[in-house]
Amino acid sequence: MQRMARGVDSVLRGIAQVMLQNNSYAGALFLAGIFYNSATFGWAALLGTAASTVTAHMLGAEPVDLRAGLFGFNGALVAIALAYFLQPGALTCCYMVLAAACTTAIMAALLNLLRTWKIPALTAPFVITTLLFVLACARFGRLHSTAMLPTAGLPQAASLEGVVSAATIAQGLFNGLAQVFFQGNVVTGVFFAVGLLVSSWRACVAALLGSFTGLAVAWGMGAAEPAIRSGAFGFNAVLTALALGSGIFLALDAASLAYSALAVATAVVVFAALSAALQPLGMPALTAPFVLVVWLFLLASPLFRRLRSAPAGS
Amino acid sequence: MQRMARGVDSVLRGIAQVMLQNNSYAGALFLAGIFYNSATFGWAALLGTAASTVTAHMLGAEPVDLRAGLFGFNGALVAIALAYFLQPGALTCCYMVLAAACTTAIMAALLNLLRTWKIPALTAPFVITTLLFVLACARFGRLHSTAMLPTAGLPQAASLEGVVSAATIAQGLFNGLAQVFFQGNVVTGVFFAVGLLVSSWRACVAALLGSFTGLAVAWGMGAAEPAIRSGAFGFNAVLTALALGSGIFLALDAASLAYSALAVATAVVVFAALSAALQPLGMPALTAPFVLVVWLFLLASPLFRRLRSAPAGS
Amino acid sequence: MQRMARGVDSVLRGIAQVMLQNNSYAGALFLAGIFYNSATFGWAALLGTAASTVTAHMLGAEPVDLRAGLFGFNGALVAIALAYFLQPGALTCCYMVLAAACTTAIMAALLNLLRTWKIPALTAPFVITTLLFVLACARFGRLHSTAMLPTAGLPQAASLEGVVSAATIAQGLFNGLAQVFFQGNVVTGVFFAVGLLVSSWRACVAALLGSFTGLAVAWGMGAAEPAIRSGAFGFNAVLTALALGSGIFLALDAASLAYSALAVATAVVVFAALSAALQPLGMPALTAPFVLVVWLFLLASPLFRRLRSAPAGS
Repeated sequence: MQRMARGVDSVLRGIAQVMLQNNSYAGALFLAGIFYNSATFGWAALLGTAASTVTAHMLGAEPVDLRAGLFGFNGALVAIALAYFLQPGALTCCYMVLAAACTTAIMAALLNLLRTWKIPALTAPFVITTLLFVLACARFGRLHSTAMLPTAGLPQAASLEGVVSAATIAQGLFNGLAQVFFQGNVVTGVFFAVGLLVSSWRACVAALLGSFTGLAVAWGMGAAEPAIRSGAFGFNAVLTALALGSGIFLALDAASLAYSALAVATAVVVFAALSAALQPLGMPALTAPFVLVVWLFLLASPLFRRLRSAPAGS
Repeated sequence: MQRMARGVDSVLRGIAQVMLQNNSYAGALFLAGIFYNSATFGWAALLGTAASTVTAHMLGAEPVDLRAGLFGFNGALVAIALAYFLQPGALTCCYMVLAAACTTAIMAALLNLLRTWKIPALTAPFVITTLLFVLACARFGRLHSTAMLPTAGLPQAASLEGVVSAATIAQGLFNGLAQVFFQGNVVTGVFFAVGLLVSSWRACVAALLGSFTGLAVAWGMGAAEPAIRSGAFGFNAVLTALALGSGIFLALDAASLAYSALAVATAVVVFAALSAALQPLGMPALTAPFVLVVWLFLLASPLFRRLRSAPAGS
Repeated sequence: MQRMARGVDSVLRGIAQVMLQNNSYAGALFLAGIFYNSATFGWAALLGTAASTVTAHMLGAEPVDLRAGLFGFNGALVAIALAYFLQPGALTCCYMVLAAACTTAIMAALLNLLRTWKIPALTAPFVITTLLFVLACARFGRLHSTAMLPTAGLPQAASLEGVVSAATIAQGLFNGLAQVFFQGNVVTGVFFAVGLLVSSWRACVAALLGSFTGLAVAWGMGAAEPAIRSGAFGFNAVLTALALGSGIFLALDAASLAYSALAVATAVVVFAALSAALQPLGMPALTAPFVLVVWLFLLASPLFRRLRSAPAGS
């Protein structure tokens, strides 16, 4: 009984870690938000978290990391991504479990690789595994992609499209949070904001400010209105703001806030760049912009005397 | 005389190292298998191994590494690859020697880079050099590619193609070994299996099991029958099984065998993914899937208490 | 007043560092060469150097690095690149400043990352930032690229094009130097050669020999005459020769000169390869070939006993 409670706690923390929170209540609210939008994605998230956590347990991973959900969040995301991009079926389910097990190996590999510089793995295992497993379907006749995948083509020049209104901004703001889990639903975004608030009010403020900044930068540069409204330019900005601007890795002060703002603007540009770079392959950028920008900005921080690391355990 | 014998020994070990064996008899059998299929590829392998080994000798590389063939195997592979993908001629020969010399620099660079984490360079110098030197021909009017190179195009959805029979499996099993050296010939595959047996029976069993697993996973996911028969899904699986499942880097036990099986299945998916990802460039995946998967799984292993390193010198 | 003189000195050294020189007179001559060809690019270079240096100053970077121009040269290059590839306007200017600020973060990140192996960041921050910021314009309706950007398409086989004459070689030789700053102008190339001579005669000789070797290798392999004349195959060869063959990182002797010649030939192949690899995205290779080849050859050098590091402070 106690063992099962601990397992549930691990899974919920795993879901919360997607937004860098080690808090099972936040995880429960994130999960509720996903189920509100779609039961399929909710079950996929649970299956993925369980599969990657069990793999880590069987291989003998550190119990402290297991309990904190460190081996769960990439499994959750990869399973939702495969449920989103691949047609359902028994083989797709097996494929999800294999992919979730893979994220565990990649997570451990990155933890070992990156500890040389003391930077976190973030959602890199999810990004790598999803790109590989979705791309591979081009060679596998029994796995079919859905219409959610971008169409493969050469990148073309953009033109101004649509008019940004107050509704675009209001919806984009919460969709930016919801898209962290591939959910295009304003109410789901509200659930996520409440989940963050339960875990840390700074996280909630940083996420909303990040979503707004991302949206504003994209608007200023002339991004298409439907993309802004859908939160496409928001979710990497949200995660970047959470990582750098809510006191998790850098101590909160004026310098780190300015640094976070620069990082969030960069994440918007990097999202646009990677989504264009992956267009010939018909692949989405996922959270790769967040991972790259936060890695670079954390790697850079020890060389700047104005920036201080966050006190451990905060 | 003794010096020449040492040189021959070095070259044969270099060829054996392609399958991670430090054994000159295995190298001789691999070379016999290549000559059985095509004298051109046999001579290319010898030229490449010699060119990269001599470059390393002239720059003053560690004699122990030179004798073990560590600076030879990438030269062998790159020369066979250029003989396979480029039309013959005097300029192509010079290009092969330049490419083989390059693998020596990249090998030394990776040895230095990767010793931070104590992981091996594997065939990464071959993969990097071959991709660069074949891609470059698109800008060079005097170097022409053969029809063996994949056609450049956008990746498309696969459909089920052909029926897998007992003959598919029997041929695919040995072609999987033969394709490690770009040889599509069942008898060459048998030569390679015997060469492995001479060096270590565990290596022979791991390679055959790896080839079979690769083939079975590809079949289950609906890969095209001609590709399965040709060994295309096998050679990365063979190398992954050799590296992780024959006691070279990880001690052999139930946990490492299960871990190897997960790695082999992953290598099949990564092969499908990389071959789709390189399609817009008209480039083959080569052994990049093996290199990436083994790097990730070896990097991850110290974090899993169930996995133990192989005793040194085994 | 003194503070302003120091600022000007920093900016000029920043421009000189593009060619690996820590010398403000060389920087002044480089700047004169750029202004001789185009005032727009001259002002862009000044804006970029200032923006990246000021960002580094505000974040609290090491004053010694600031004064040596280490945080300036990537800003200079990225601003010239954006002036070259994007249509002018107020938004493009803001975009340049954001990009230059980004190079500062990436520079600090690479300094931290690469000190594990004691290799320099070179122009990697410029390459990464330019590719990302130009690619991103495909999603931004208010930023438009110029006709200088390569057309996106699948790579195709080259055919021999044009006849190489003495004029091709004479112009290619100096255009190779000028193209380091995106300038296709022989007189600008002469300015740069004089700038190098002022800083170090070895640098001047290495740059000219590098340009000639790059041109000769490209010619031998059948590259198109207009590309050879324009210096396209020269600028990466020039920078590679400066880094490895003028006594900056490796002590000058027969072994390091042979090693540099191998590196320069490799840089030409890598330039051809990367320019083909980036064709589906319609992106230029920039100085990525120089960065990759010098990183690999410097990483490899400690394993070769014949090569010695340059004495510090030389």
